[in-house]
Amino acid sequence: MSENTPSLDVVILSKEHAAYKAALEKYGQPAFNIIQATDDPSAIDQKQVRVMLADPGLAADIVNDCDRLQWIQSGWAGNTPLIKQQKRDYVLTGVKGVFGRQMREYVFAYLLYFSRNIHAFYEAQKNEGFNKWNKPDYQYLAGKTLGICGAGSIASSLLPVADTFGMRVIGLTRSGDAKPHYDKMYTPSQKIDFAQNSDFIVNLLPDTPDTLNFFDASLFRAMGKGSVLINAGRGSAIDEQALIEALNHEHLRAAVLDVFRQEPLPDHHPFWHHEKIIVTQHTAAESDPKDIAALFHDNARRFLDGEALEHVFDFDKGY
Amino acid sequence: MSENTPSLDVVILSKEHAAYKAALEKYGQPAFNIIQATDDPSAIDQKQVRVMLADPGLAADIVNDCDRLQWIQSGWAGNTPLIKQQKRDYVLTGVKGVFGRQMREYVFAYLLYFSRNIHAFYEAQKNEGFNKWNKPDYQYLAGKTLGICGAGSIASSLLPVADTFGMRVIGLTRSGDAKPHYDKMYTPSQKIDFAQNSDFIVNLLPDTPDTLNFFDASLFRAMGKGSVLINAGRGSAIDEQALIEALNHEHLRAAVLDVFRQEPLPDHHPFWHHEKIIVTQHTAAESDPKDIAALFHDNARRFLDGEALEHVFDFDKGY
Repeated sequence: MSENTPSLDVVILSKEHAAYKAALEKYGQPAFNIIQATDDPSAIDQKQVRVMLADPGLAADIVNDCDRLQWIQSGWAGNTPLIKQQKRDYVLTGVKGVFGRQMREYVFAYLLYFSRNIHAFYEAQKNEGFNKWNKPDYQYLAGKTLGICGAGSIASSLLPVADTFGMRVIGLTRSGDAKPHYDKMYTPSQKIDFAQNSDFIVNLLPDTPDTLNFFDASLFRAMGKGSVLINAGRGSAIDEQALIEALNHEHLRAAVLDVFRQEPLPDHHPFWHHEKIIVTQHTAAESDPKDIAALFHDNARRFLDGEALEHVFDFDKGY
Repeated sequence: MSENTPSLDVVILSKEHAAYKAALEKYGQPAFNIIQATDDPSAIDQKQVRVMLADPGLAADIVNDCDRLQWIQSGWAGNTPLIKQQKRDYVLTGVKGVFGRQMREYVFAYLLYFSRNIHAFYEAQKNEGFNKWNKPDYQYLAGKTLGICGAGSIASSLLPVADTFGMRVIGLTRSGDAKPHYDKMYTPSQKIDFAQNSDFIVNLLPDTPDTLNFFDASLFRAMGKGSVLINAGRGSAIDEQALIEALNHEHLRAAVLDVFRQEPLPDHHPFWHHEKIIVTQHTAAESDPKDIAALFHDNARRFLDGEALEHVFDFDKGY
């Protein structure tokens, strides 16, 4: 590397450290000078840390002791472990635009699974003792309303797909401000109205105090009997006991849950054993280390040039 | 009705005769004068039949004796029962543009079902005796290649959805002529190459002598181990024994079959009992009588005005 090539000293603290290191080493202009790459917070020389590419869950263990810290590039969509720490005098940048591709396949896989009633066809085929040609009922997404809670960048990846299937889309955000491609936007205080008007609800709300138990008994009662909730936002948004009771009382048809208050979800948790709940082990939108490395590289160029970084996390808003 | 309102005498012969009658009675300009509406071919007064809205399977019973027949508007996508009759000195019009909305939901429901590995998640959740949080493997449609056999109007409804999921689309048609939105087009003689380049194959080929056993052992051997075949075209396109052997030898991952040589598919047929075959009881694209009535009404106006009809069936080509 020539002495004129700009480079950035970086510490990698992540379960994906090997994949990140391999991806970052391919870049020049600016290049990365990787000081450490590990998944062990205790192995980090805290005095060396000025710039870090990190999993928030691991970085939280050491961030308060990193006195020279200027910038953390997060590798996760959610930064709750870092928000809970005292230290805030650094720039935390998030990841945007790298989860949409995965999320839209996850969400529409389950929307179509329920709408098309794939499991009923599966059961009908296995069922002995009656005319197998008798077909189960099924429906279409076309003409149905998709309600999205949290109308950010991940949510926006759902919009073109909903459009090609002829679905109507409504949203719910803190401000309730109108947004392109959303038929109507609701505020949190209008959540009952929002639920009554949705055939399917997808939760992508960030983990903030406002969203704690957002999905409660009142909201479940407002959902249609045939409606389905997909939670790919945060586990804390769901009142767990209220969800189970609502499913038992057929206030909604099913829930597809990707995220949980406690992860891994313990084997004895009732969600695993409820016939109307599908658990997907926090797989809805797994980031590809290469995508995050590319985003980090873009921001590194800005950092070295003294420009404002992209996807800066706002500690006060919580997203 | 005023004497000046144009109207067309029509016989309805269909399992959906009541729904068709109700839909047609709503039209004026031109209005329909419904002479008979029944699902019983023997109840038809054949001398009266000049224009008929009919299920091809029922119309085939009487068409050869309808000496004054000028036009049949078919209610089905496939017209094989009428093609097999001697009588051809009338205009047969098909239905187009009314199956796409249904077909795209059917096809992508199963593409995502396999890609996202929904059944493996279902099994993992039910499985006792190991850490339930261990997640099954799954993949994405993005970057994969969808191979469509038969690039007509139903196929075209799949293209915008494939595009929003970031899939590449290749096609196979009789001519192999290039078509917009298809990355590459193949001819029937290039079917091995086509199969090798497809991650998923959807068959929408019409029922012609050329397509009999089109999906044979040679094609199945060319498919990838992880690939899936969806047959929503005609049952006769599949060599049934070759498909079962190919699945048993893991030449392909699974087959989703909607149409069959014999329908209803008999309860003892091995397709019902094969763990890599999904049967969907000819439900992929059920037409809505209202949609077909609207299309018939458009053509009725052309018929009365002496214009060329739309969607005229070519008896020689077979589609």
